[in-house]
This record gives sequence, C-alpha cells and structure tokens, in this order.
Amino acid sequence: MPTRTGRYTLILNSCPSVVGFAAVASKKEAEGPLARCFDIVNEDCTFGESTWEKAESRMQQVVVGKALEKAQLSSTDLDYVFAGDLLNQCTGSAYGLRDLGVPFLGVYGACSTMAESLMLASLFVETGCASRAAAVTSSHFCSAEKQYRYPLEYGGLRPPSSQWTVTGAGAAIVGQSDAAPYIRAVTAGRIEDLGIKDANNMGAAMAPAAASTIKQFLEDTQTQPSDYDLILTGDLGQIGSDILYDLLRRENIEIAKNHSDCGLLIFDREKQDVHAGGSGCGCSASVLCSYILSRIRDGELKNVLFIATGALLSPTSVQQGQSIPGIAHLVHISNTK
Amino acid sequence: MPTRTGRYTLILNSCPSVVGFAAVASKKEAEGPLARCFDIVNEDCTFGESTWEKAESRMQQVVVGKALEKAQLSSTDLDYVFAGDLLNQCTGSAYGLRDLGVPFLGVYGACSTMAESLMLASLFVETGCASRAAAVTSSHFCSAEKQYRYPLEYGGLRPPSSQWTVTGAGAAIVGQSDAAPYIRAVTAGRIEDLGIKDANNMGAAMAPAAASTIKQFLEDTQTQPSDYDLILTGDLGQIGSDILYDLLRRENIEIAKNHSDCGLLIFDREKQDVHAGGSGCGCSASVLCSYILSRIRDGELKNVLFIATGALLSPTSVQQGQSIPGIAHLVHISNTK
Repeated sequence: MPTRTGRYTLILNSCPSVVGFAAVASKKEAEGPLARCFDIVNEDCTFGESTWEKAESRMQQVVVGKALEKAQLSSTDLDYVFAGDLLNQCTGSAYGLRDLGVPFLGVYGACSTMAESLMLASLFVETGCASRAAAVTSSHFCSAEKQYRYPLEYGGLRPPSSQWTVTGAGAAIVGQSDAAPYIRAVTAGRIEDLGIKDANNMGAAMAPAAASTIKQFLEDTQTQPSDYDLILTGDLGQIGSDILYDLLRRENIEIAKNHSDCGLLIFDREKQDVHAGGSGCGCSASVLCSYILSRIRDGELKNVLFIATGALLSPTSVQQGQSIPGIAHLVHISNTK
Repeated sequence: MPTRTGRYTLILNSCPSVVGFAAVASKKEAEGPLARCFDIVNEDCTFGESTWEKAESRMQQVVVGKALEKAQLSSTDLDYVFAGDLLNQCTGSAYGLRDLGVPFLGVYGACSTMAESLMLASLFVETGCASRAAAVTSSHFCSAEKQYRYPLEYGGLRPPSSQWTVTGAGAAIVGQSDAAPYIRAVTAGRIEDLGIKDANNMGAAMAPAAASTIKQFLEDTQTQPSDYDLILTGDLGQIGSDILYDLLRRENIEIAKNHSDCGLLIFDREKQDVHAGGSGCGCSASVLCSYILSRIRDGELKNVLFIATGALLSPTSVQQGQSIPGIAHLVHISNTK
C-alpha cells in the first residue's frame, strides 16, 4: 500500500520494478546521440504501413511486443495496459493495441502521457490491482505535423522556439521483482496556465507545470535537487528548460546542475535542425525506455526524477484564442529499493 | 485492498461511496424522459460561452462544482480528478478543469470514459491512493457533430442507425462513507473489433465489447443477470442493444429483462427524432450521475451493473478504411455494502 507524504506525493512502499522496457524510433532519432540505445529503428518512418497514423499504431504494437520479449513475458502475463498518444481520439493506442487482448485503459496527458501511464501502472502493481501492467506511449512526426500544424507538403516554416516531434514509442512493464529499476514515488500534477498562447512555444507553456510539480515533490518528500543524480523533464526543449530554471530559482530551488530534458538528449541541436529540441509523447517515452532505464538498471544512475510534461491544447483551442494549459507528472525511479 | 476474482474483476472490499454526484444537460435532454433528474439545464446549449468547445468546458467546470456543492465539499477536498471527453486532445476536460487546482489525470475511452474514470477514482479510494477522487465526463452535440461529421450548417442527413450526441456532463465524487451508492467491483474491458466500418452505426461497433465485458464479469463473480436489478449499458442505442442480446444469447446469457441503455433512457425515440438513441461521453455520464445514482441511493435499485461503451475510432481512421474498435468497462454499484 502506498503512503501519502506531504499533500500530493505517494510513496510506493513495495517498490515495483520495471521488469521490461523497450523503445522504438525512426531515422532522424537514429541519427542523434541516442542512436545505439533504441531497440528497434525503422529507417523510413512508415514501419511498413500505408499511412502515418497506421505507422504510429504499428510502433505501439511493436514496442509493447519488444518489451514483453525482453521481460520474457507474453501478453497474457499483463493485467492492464495504460496507453495514450497525440492522435485525435488516441487512435495510435487503440489501433496499435487492439489485438493485444489485455484490459485497456486509455489515458491522455499530451506529452506527459508516459509519466501518467507509468504512474498508473506502478500504482496498480503497488496496490495489488495488477500483478503486471504496461505503460505505452508514442508519437510520430508526420501524423503530428499533419494534425497540429500544416500538411507536410506545404513545407511550413518553423520558428526557432518550435520543437520537433519525435517519431518513436516506449513501453514499460511494471511488476514485482528484485531487480532495478524500482518505482519509488509518484506525484500527479495540477494544470498550470500562465497565459502562453504561442503554439510554437510549447516549452514555455509547459515549464510552469514542471516547476510546480518538481517543487511539490521536493516539499512533500523534504528532499533537495542534489539528492537526485538526474532530474529529467520531457520535453521542455531549450527554451522551456531555461524558463524552468528561472521559475524554480524564484523558489530558491536550483536544478540546472543535475537537470536534463528528453527533448535535448534525443537530438543534436547543432546538427539536426530541430530548433528548440524534440517533443511529442514518444520523445520522453523513447528516451526513458532506452537510455535512462538502462542506466538506472546498470547502476550508472541511482535516483532519477522523471517529469514528463504535456501541453493540453488543441488546434481548435488555439484558433479560438485560448492560452495553453500545461501539466507535468513526476515518477521517482531508483536503482535501489 | 481490492481482491481479484476470476481473471479480470476486482472486488472493492472497502466499498467506497459516491459521496456526491451531479449532472448537467441542455434543452433537448430536458425535453426527454429524464428532464427532472438533471441538476442544471442550460436552455440554449452555449452555457454562456462563445464557442461549442468552450460551452463543453464550461459544463465540466459547472458539473464538478455542483457535485462538490451537493457533497458539501470543496475542491481542496479532492486528491485527484480523472476526466475525459470526446473533443480532440480532450480539451473539454483540460480547459474545463484547469482552474480546479486538483491533480489531473486525463483519461480517454470515448463514450466509455465515465466508467473508466469512475473505476479509477474508486480504485484510488479503495487502495488509499486518494481520500476522495472525482470522475468527470462530458459531450456536446454541436462540438461532436462538427468534429466527427459535418458542419452543423451543412444539415447532413442522418441514417436510421445513427445516434444523437448528448449535450451533457456528469461528475461523481468517490470517498469513504457509510451512505450508498457503494462501488462494489470493477472490470476493465479489452478492445473488441468485429470489423464494423460504418461510423453511423456505433451501437453495432460497441456491442461486442459490452458482451465481452458483461460475460467476463458474470464468469469472474459466478453471478447471473438476475442477481442485478439493472444491467445498464451506455450508450448502445436500440441497434446495439439488440445485437448485445443476440451475442449474449449465444453464450446462454439472457439480459433483456433487466437491461437498459443510457442512450435509450435519455431520449424519447418516438418524439425526439434521435434515431437509434443518445450517445456521447455525456450520455452515460449524465444518466448515471442523475437518475441512476439517485435511485440506488434511495434504495429503488439495489444492484446495478454500469457498463459504459466506447467506439475508439477517429474520423481519420474511418477515412483510412479501418474498422471500429469498441471497448466497455464495468462498474458494479450497490445500495448495500
């Protein structure tokens, strides 16, 4: 049973493990610094499918299959799958996982979905609601551009503050085990909206939510940023990260030394023309479920705060002049119980 | 702590209560048989807002406020809110609840969202993850038509199998209490897809999922349909309900005598020109959180199986020739612990 500490944080006393994890990515991600970390790379973005949406569904299907394979499990070993994505009506998940035969709980947290789904899967295992539960999330550059911005053929110019949607997916299977990585605590975020209306500056829209959730977790647990090897947001990019530092400094919290962002890790901004960094549900999912969880498992990282951030806008809400609500959920992942 | 019974059902041993509930609806719903049951009715569908999407957000804000008021609680008494809707990127929930200041967990299950969110809120209370959690869901005829079908001004003809999206919202607040209604058990559904491709026949697409989840729950709990006063699906409409009976009869399960459907309860099909019945996340939400929960509280209904059904399609998936995956989640609600 979890223990509530402070106002909003739950300590998972059984320390559920991530018993299997996998990441899928595409050509551009495989040209970046994490190229060797992904389990599967598809060179042409289609994953053998005829549309971008079907390609995204295929990624979800493939990534959960790979995570199960690495954990030496089959789908019948899963009690629940928590999944979501950026496509309208979350069809990346629904179509990708429709043949899995596992009770399906769809979640939507925009780019915070990996943290939300991992949090719910971990709480289900912690509380005995599930023996094992999977968290699966994806995004696809082409399906996202077409849906949120312009047809690809239009060749719209991207301002410097924009981020590049990652074509990738991640899956984490949570269960009870005596092997790291362990899920130690979770903090669900509140919606924060400081009035940013520029849909090409998602980092700025999401930074206040990340600051709020990080501050809340540190207060609740009475810990300091220096207690963690890595405070990993995903995906604020460069502009959002800088705003996050500023917002937290106003609260006398300094994280710059041990902070990184999934959107900055996955691409080489000097060489890859991604402007402010990577984004999309699949960004934090594919970085967490490859490079990060491997390093926690291997003891290279001892204590990581994973804070996936989401911008809860839609193209319609932007057209109607609404500002962009942000959200950030936190999962504390550790090498030790 | 919950007990797993059978393969997929969780028994909630603490029997969390629905400590507050409310429903909001609009003019057409208030002309139907449940007119007197809704807490708030807005006559002109706009809820004082300038767009349909903002109107839907306003409904979510209003309905959770009303449920809190009826429970004599404030938002600070809530540990989590689980919410979702049909709008792209679930903006009905995100914008409606952004000022609530409560940790926000977005869910997406199309029209099954009320059952999914109520299930998660109940499990959070059962397991001590939350003292109180809210489940909130909405739909709006105008925002749904515009997004899924045609501009309203086009006046597209609707085939007889089509259903009418309810303009309504429901909120249920779950906590520990010695007053009914009590949440006794939950069964999360698996995605079922028997190949229906007609987006104007959602009932047919969702019926297999409802049949699968009902059969699973009865098997898991070793109970019969006659053990329940009401088996309430939402929202199969007339065509989907008939298919559900047929599918279950193949399994020697007969539910027609004590079955009803939220999409059939909310409108008078003879007089209201809604074709096969009501639909939308707000259909099962507004029926459950008014007429049904009141009758359980008052002892007129002793044991209800609430099975909200969702069609996990998008306009894009239909245009790409994909069939429609369905899902159904079940919550057993009772007058006694």
